[in-house]
Amino acid sequence: MIKEKIRTIPNWPKEGIMFRDITTLLKDPQGLKEASTQLIEHCKKLDFDLVAGIESRGFILGSIIAYELNKGFIPIRKKGKLPFRTIKESYKLEYGTDEIEIHEDAIQENQKILLIDDLIATGGTAIAAVNLIQKAKGIVNNCCFVIDLPELKGTKKLKELGLDVFSLVEFEGE
Amino acid sequence: MIKEKIRTIPNWPKEGIMFRDITTLLKDPQGLKEASTQLIEHCKKLDFDLVAGIESRGFILGSIIAYELNKGFIPIRKKGKLPFRTIKESYKLEYGTDEIEIHEDAIQENQKILLIDDLIATGGTAIAAVNLIQKAKGIVNNCCFVIDLPELKGTKKLKELGLDVFSLVEFEGE
Repeated sequence: MIKEKIRTIPNWPKEGIMFRDITTLLKDPQGLKEASTQLIEHCKKLDFDLVAGIESRGFILGSIIAYELNKGFIPIRKKGKLPFRTIKESYKLEYGTDEIEIHEDAIQENQKILLIDDLIATGGTAIAAVNLIQKAKGIVNNCCFVIDLPELKGTKKLKELGLDVFSLVEFEGE
Repeated sequence: MIKEKIRTIPNWPKEGIMFRDITTLLKDPQGLKEASTQLIEHCKKLDFDLVAGIESRGFILGSIIAYELNKGFIPIRKKGKLPFRTIKESYKLEYGTDEIEIHEDAIQENQKILLIDDLIATGGTAIAAVNLIQKAKGIVNNCCFVIDLPELKGTKKLKELGLDVFSLVEFEGE
């Protein structure tokens, strides 16, 4: 049911990419509820203090999980968006690099962080987020995504780092 | 309680601005729960079909409200971020202009939209969002914010457009 509500946009943001668009899932009340409920069912068994959502689609389901499970929410943002002193982590893109940040006081030492984003593909952003959380002295054992693209091996890389990875749906070679 | 958990950052993003930072509220489990609950208590009395959250801080509490009240969630995004065909609305900044977008199929004709953002200041973005929703044939009667800066008159302008405006806290001349 969740998978059917995700729209595929061919050749976006560029030729050859099949973009998986969750806006069609989120605008559907049953779709939003079902996706949230399934993530919450998984996450309520996990041991964590804070939910970290990756800007900006990770904010949507990340904040719902934090709210429902009585945790705090911290945003992981693109550079220059956070107003207080930050810790930064760079990561490679196909062309060039990008940078993500969190507030330096977002995490207390050894707090356990659940990482949330909408999609895991090559894992570049997620691994940068894990590094960032570790720089901030947090511990990240678990991450959850709405969509996994297993052919791009991001989940495999996160598991090799020792993380537990959960995704609601997979898209392969479609 | 909510107001105390919001941090003020002087002179950000530029000299003379007292930036109201909700990340300190959101990372606190009781703060996130209390802010969400107060917004939900207000919004459950309203008549609406979808929650529209303005990128990106509006996604955080907007999605929680949609989830809890069994509505759909639609993101209002900065230009170039949405993968499908969009409707656009430009608005003036102090220097230059900016543009927000929604998917052209995000809203069905005459659906009632609740608009959410973290803060209302001069109202430039919120009024652009109202115009955008109307272009998409939606009806927006209600908007909610965490923070109102009443001296900047955004709430007044929205009320003059016939909207009902609700904010959790106000900051004046501090």
